[in-house]
Amino acid sequence: MTLTKPFLSDNAAAVHPKLWEAMRAADEPDNPYDGDRLSAELDAAFTALFGRECAALWVATGTAANCLALATMCAPHGGVVCHREAHIEVDEGGAPGFYLHGAKLMLAEGEGAKLTPEDIAALIDPIRNDVHQVQPHAIAITQASEYGRTYTPGELAGLGAFAKGRKLGLHMDGARFANAAAFLGGSAVEAARSASGPVDSLAFGFIKNGGMGAEAVILFDPERAAEVRYRRKRAGHLQCKGRYLAAQILAMLDGDLWLANAAHANAAAQEVAAGCGERLLHPVEANELFVHLTQAERAALRAQDFAFYDWGAQSARFVTAWNTRAQDAAALGKAIAAL
Amino acid sequence: MTLTKPFLSDNAAAVHPKLWEAMRAADEPDNPYDGDRLSAELDAAFTALFGRECAALWVATGTAANCLALATMCAPHGGVVCHREAHIEVDEGGAPGFYLHGAKLMLAEGEGAKLTPEDIAALIDPIRNDVHQVQPHAIAITQASEYGRTYTPGELAGLGAFAKGRKLGLHMDGARFANAAAFLGGSAVEAARSASGPVDSLAFGFIKNGGMGAEAVILFDPERAAEVRYRRKRAGHLQCKGRYLAAQILAMLDGDLWLANAAHANAAAQEVAAGCGERLLHPVEANELFVHLTQAERAALRAQDFAFYDWGAQSARFVTAWNTRAQDAAALGKAIAAL
Amino acid sequence: MTLTKPFLSDNAAAVHPKLWEAMRAADEPDNPYDGDRLSAELDAAFTALFGRECAALWVATGTAANCLALATMCAPHGGVVCHREAHIEVDEGGAPGFYLHGAKLMLAEGEGAKLTPEDIAALIDPIRNDVHQVQPHAIAITQASEYGRTYTPGELAGLGAFAKGRKLGLHMDGARFANAAAFLGGSAVEAARSASGPVDSLAFGFIKNGGMGAEAVILFDPERAAEVRYRRKRAGHLQCKGRYLAAQILAMLDGDLWLANAAHANAAAQEVAAGCGERLLHPVEANELFVHLTQAERAALRAQDFAFYDWGAQSARFVTAWNTRAQDAAALGKAIAAL
Amino acid sequence: MTLTKPFLSDNAAAVHPKLWEAMRAADEPDNPYDGDRLSAELDAAFTALFGRECAALWVATGTAANCLALATMCAPHGGVVCHREAHIEVDEGGAPGFYLHGAKLMLAEGEGAKLTPEDIAALIDPIRNDVHQVQPHAIAITQASEYGRTYTPGELAGLGAFAKGRKLGLHMDGARFANAAAFLGGSAVEAARSASGPVDSLAFGFIKNGGMGAEAVILFDPERAAEVRYRRKRAGHLQCKGRYLAAQILAMLDGDLWLANAAHANAAAQEVAAGCGERLLHPVEANELFVHLTQAERAALRAQDFAFYDWGAQSARFVTAWNTRAQDAAALGKAIAAL
Repeated sequence: MTLTKPFLSDNAAAVHPKLWEAMRAADEPDNPYDGDRLSAELDAAFTALFGRECAALWVATGTAANCLALATMCAPHGGVVCHREAHIEVDEGGAPGFYLHGAKLMLAEGEGAKLTPEDIAALIDPIRNDVHQVQPHAIAITQASEYGRTYTPGELAGLGAFAKGRKLGLHMDGARFANAAAFLGGSAVEAARSASGPVDSLAFGFIKNGGMGAEAVILFDPERAAEVRYRRKRAGHLQCKGRYLAAQILAMLDGDLWLANAAHANAAAQEVAAGCGERLLHPVEANELFVHLTQAERAALRAQDFAFYDWGAQSARFVTAWNTRAQDAAALGKAIAAL
Repeated sequence: MTLTKPFLSDNAAAVHPKLWEAMRAADEPDNPYDGDRLSAELDAAFTALFGRECAALWVATGTAANCLALATMCAPHGGVVCHREAHIEVDEGGAPGFYLHGAKLMLAEGEGAKLTPEDIAALIDPIRNDVHQVQPHAIAITQASEYGRTYTPGELAGLGAFAKGRKLGLHMDGARFANAAAFLGGSAVEAARSASGPVDSLAFGFIKNGGMGAEAVILFDPERAAEVRYRRKRAGHLQCKGRYLAAQILAMLDGDLWLANAAHANAAAQEVAAGCGERLLHPVEANELFVHLTQAERAALRAQDFAFYDWGAQSARFVTAWNTRAQDAAALGKAIAAL
Repeated sequence: MTLTKPFLSDNAAAVHPKLWEAMRAADEPDNPYDGDRLSAELDAAFTALFGRECAALWVATGTAANCLALATMCAPHGGVVCHREAHIEVDEGGAPGFYLHGAKLMLAEGEGAKLTPEDIAALIDPIRNDVHQVQPHAIAITQASEYGRTYTPGELAGLGAFAKGRKLGLHMDGARFANAAAFLGGSAVEAARSASGPVDSLAFGFIKNGGMGAEAVILFDPERAAEVRYRRKRAGHLQCKGRYLAAQILAMLDGDLWLANAAHANAAAQEVAAGCGERLLHPVEANELFVHLTQAERAALRAQDFAFYDWGAQSARFVTAWNTRAQDAAALGKAIAAL
Repeated sequence: MTLTKPFLSDNAAAVHPKLWEAMRAADEPDNPYDGDRLSAELDAAFTALFGRECAALWVATGTAANCLALATMCAPHGGVVCHREAHIEVDEGGAPGFYLHGAKLMLAEGEGAKLTPEDIAALIDPIRNDVHQVQPHAIAITQASEYGRTYTPGELAGLGAFAKGRKLGLHMDGARFANAAAFLGGSAVEAARSASGPVDSLAFGFIKNGGMGAEAVILFDPERAAEVRYRRKRAGHLQCKGRYLAAQILAMLDGDLWLANAAHANAAAQEVAAGCGERLLHPVEANELFVHLTQAERAALRAQDFAFYDWGAQSARFVTAWNTRAQDAAALGKAIAAL
């Protein structure tokens, strides 16, 4: 089925032409696994982008990226604090339990699927410091959040200080990191820096942003990379022909394509948002919209060929992508406004 | 580095043009994960190929394919019998321990990295039937084996009867299944059937045979597929844009490309073998050659731009691929003969 | 420190004299592990007690008993529904995550730490039936509950029907099973039967009821016992001198000591409850009392040598045991009434 | 069945009277788990015994003791080198795979089930330093070994230097540590020190030496104790009434009972050995004898009421214990000599 006016998700959008080019260019023989020359460029490329030393590993999915990073900061007998609606809790099929060998996700409340130090403290302060209760080892946040909200540099600084004070690791699920960075603004380097802040690790998503099958695990303590490389292999995520994944990622970084793609998606989301008015359940700070719509209103939109998911009984989710057509976004905004 | 006259491995060879085409053709929007129309075709395509009902799931690596299949047949407190030099034991970074939650690999001896019922019985018969000793739950064999040897239909029947008699699952690591099937001969359907025999599951490799990043887990008891789907997601192996993996696999099946590619590689291997004479450590039944060569002889070959791995102190391994040039294979055979 | 007027917990009470006798009587040599004649009697003894066929294994702790039973009914990629305040969630240090290899505890709400089919349905009905979300495999309830509440036979029948209808396993944490059975009344056999109902497995507690270090895992499908025996060994819980554990358990069953001990503790709890009036936060149906008491009131009681735990800021928990002295219980009741 | 002239194993021998006394003395109420005054004495007691700072935790079995210690030094993606016939490999039902989350046991060869640095190097030196192969993280040795052999202080120093040089942890399975210490001689402190050497952790066995159900995990880096306490709870090994376990251990240390019991068993073994002559398969350095005996000879001994296990087809194993009667040992030695 070819989808028309698709706002279902960015996760199935087509692959960007420049990534196709880059993959084709990688078609000549090279060393297997991550021994090829493209994979070898990743550390330097991301170090340049973030303006701080880091190690970068490709992996095929955000789920694997999140879990491999979290495994460096949470022992099997510990816990990872995340939002009750975090993707790792709700939509990864229990992957953290697998990769972290039974460690516990500890569910905090927070507005817009974001967490503040106060939200986290409310959850973990009552935990008795004894062996009968699982102790938190790390915090995982999502940038942009599951409701399309963005952490500001100031908010990230606060979380970083809190995590450091509690001796907790801080991981960022960046499935839509590019959209957050684009929203926060500035040059690519400035945007990357302000959107990542003082985290220990980042699952930097490219697939929702025009990639085919490559995300990057970014470790801001490069000494942890060796462990992650072993764990990646052990999880069956060390692909033979890693150069095709590295090629996608490098093409994304080249000329800041990642940021341009995300800016496009964000702009389309704002176009839609312009028609939503009071219907918006959350401010639109990335490329997702959560919109109050009755069942009849949703039916009316679908009758106009707009594709999207229901979100509970009284609302819908719309997601824009790197290739959302401007006219589709404008049409959707108008259609909602006209309801 | 561009490798010239490469016989290092088939695992880094270029992607076949027909797979590129198929992936590009998949570039239009469709449902994410394995909800797309291409992924939906896999069960039927493999059922037709094997002439017996099966379920088929794509996954990015052979390691994941093997482990997901094994997890259906071996409980965490059980063991999997495999050859001492099996890939799952030697080269998968402990992945079976991860996916099987600590189950044990039980190492049998056998000629050419193949196992016979007698080899397996010699290992497991002395195991006391009590809780102090890990009990075998499954057997894993490799087709073609780690030394490029092929199980005949008769041998597979013997192993199947043995496994059934002992109530053990039987899994086949088919990273080079196509090469084995091509060696055994017949039409694609006959070859697939004779090379797979009475196994419960097969990790059907395509990557070494011209693929980019897609293998198939074949479950001959389709009822086990549901569990594997959950486990695949949990392992972070359910890619968003699964249609690009399905496209690769379907293109491989289309017109029996898988078999043609393997036949090409096998023929190249025979071309090399023709020059090896007594130097061959194992009969060449697929696309790998293990050749007795002194250090000086290896140096001499490398001076002629042949790339390959040492195999211990006194021999070398040569691997041909779907795209090995006939003149390179002939040249290598002659060069070895001339030593 | 010797505790006076102790109402802290039943979990540290002295060992019953008859158990000491039984352990001493077991001091002659016998086969190790569970090969001794006492361990061999367990299956029959519990089958007689419950009036239905079952297998019974000793284990040193309730945590291990719960987890070993749950592992038979929940795959690593599944989930176990339990109350948000269930012991397995709150106080077992993440043991279910360890024993179940990362399976998820799914937290339901319910009055008095009990669960109804409606409570469970409210939690699991919204779970999408897809691989992105962990699916429930089992339900765990606690009899008596963490708030000293007891499931009636009718309630258990309802849960059993619900679990069967949903194809979920049903496990009972019976750390204070004896107290529940004593509360429900009848002969030992009747009480055991009515307190256990249609569960698949029961962690039958003896330690809080006068034991030293032996609980029983009861499997009402005896075919599952073999797996649990392997898992018990694998968890390091197969003690060499198992006869001392079996001796404790058999002594508890002998002459229905388990029921008499629990009845004593329950009676003491009722004696205390008589003085609590409106202060009681939960009906007293076993041997625990949760009592509204200000900080000053708690201090006043402690000044009278009563030992107990705070329960939040405005209440306290009192637990009676098999050896609670009648005069202490009466004194506590009066002291609370006099506040 | 009451066994007469039992040489089957020390693992099912009666409990020493002093331990009964100590357990009975612990029968007064105290804090649960390891919060009691006896458990609190363990660290100091073992620090005094070994003459070096250490932390000590009770646990019910040697299997749990070994695995909890190993988990502090081997990550899930690593391996533990042990002898091919080590108890952790052969007789613990896969427990290391469970506790270490799938880490691999790497099997070395060595005379008398002992390992030398050379034995270990022969195993691990060929391991490629890449992610495809599991890397060793730790070494586990057994003192006394599975064949009743003892590591001398010099041998231990060599292993310690090797482990340190390779950055590997070094754990000692001391199920029969007391017998090794008694064999090595000296005061209790000297014996403990010389038998433990430069290990990082020790599973100090008491159960085979007259205990009921308590072993000690000794951590010579006390900072690791916190992690082990969490893991012990998580494994269901934190017993409520831990004071009964602590009481056993403290009674064993009191007046060096552990050493006296072991010396008694060793002496009995020597008494038997005196009659074995050339039949001995291994020097007798602890309390186990492996004796060449034909089937007919074994039948002849059993006809004289000696109980023991066959050890393969042509030999038998005899184990003495703290309570082996001198006349039985003498009789056995004479009976063998008379064959």
